[in-house]
Amino acid sequence: MSKVVSPAQIAASLTELWSPRIIGEVDDAYVKVARVKGTLAWHSHRDEDELFLVLKGHLRIEMEGNTVELDAGEMFVVPKGVRHNPVAENECHLLLIERKSTRHTGDVVTGKTRSLADQLR
Amino acid sequence: MSKVVSPAQIAASLTELWSPRIIGEVDDAYVKVARVKGTLAWHSHRDEDELFLVLKGHLRIEMEGNTVELDAGEMFVVPKGVRHNPVAENECHLLLIERKSTRHTGDVVTGKTRSLADQLR
Repeated sequence: MSKVVSPAQIAASLTELWSPRIIGEVDDAYVKVARVKGTLAWHSHRDEDELFLVLKGHLRIEMEGNTVELDAGEMFVVPKGVRHNPVAENECHLLLIERKSTRHTGDVVTGKTRSLADQLR
Repeated sequence: MSKVVSPAQIAASLTELWSPRIIGEVDDAYVKVARVKGTLAWHSHRDEDELFLVLKGHLRIEMEGNTVELDAGEMFVVPKGVRHNPVAENECHLLLIERKSTRHTGDVVTGKTRSLADQLR
């Protein structure tokens, strides 16, 4: 059964950076939180949109030709197929929504790539 | 193209209660915000889960045998098929995520039922 959760509290409790934790599901999408700092990697998700909601801090999402800046409380959806690179100059906590099939580094495998098994730990 | 939005600011700007506004989409789901006070109606969504994230205030979600209470920053997913009734004793601002096919009063049509055309205004 579903339960009441606090995304901000769970994000703050994460020990590893860039390692999203699944905190809920809505039909075929997962709701995740992550604690990030620095940069992830340029990548894209061919078939999935990706929602970023900043819970704490500030996030820059670099995209080819359209970089956006998000303060706490702000949200942006990276459309499917758009190459992007999330950058946090300082520690930033995120809520993410993406289809269950989505890998967080998309078509790129890096040292920060995590499997769903990792995320469900 | 997607743009940066502040769900809390948009919710606060809504003039009508219980009239969700679509603020984004992630694949086959809409992200909506709503300003609510009082009670909606007992209803269920046969095929769709429904995510509630409280942006401001407090929400009670009455369900048969399992009422939950959400403070600001807390999230709950009502699973598909579960009859529920959202209640806000005082003004409450919500972020909602549900599949595009979802009607917000589910299988029940009330004076508060809004069409997608209303939500896109």
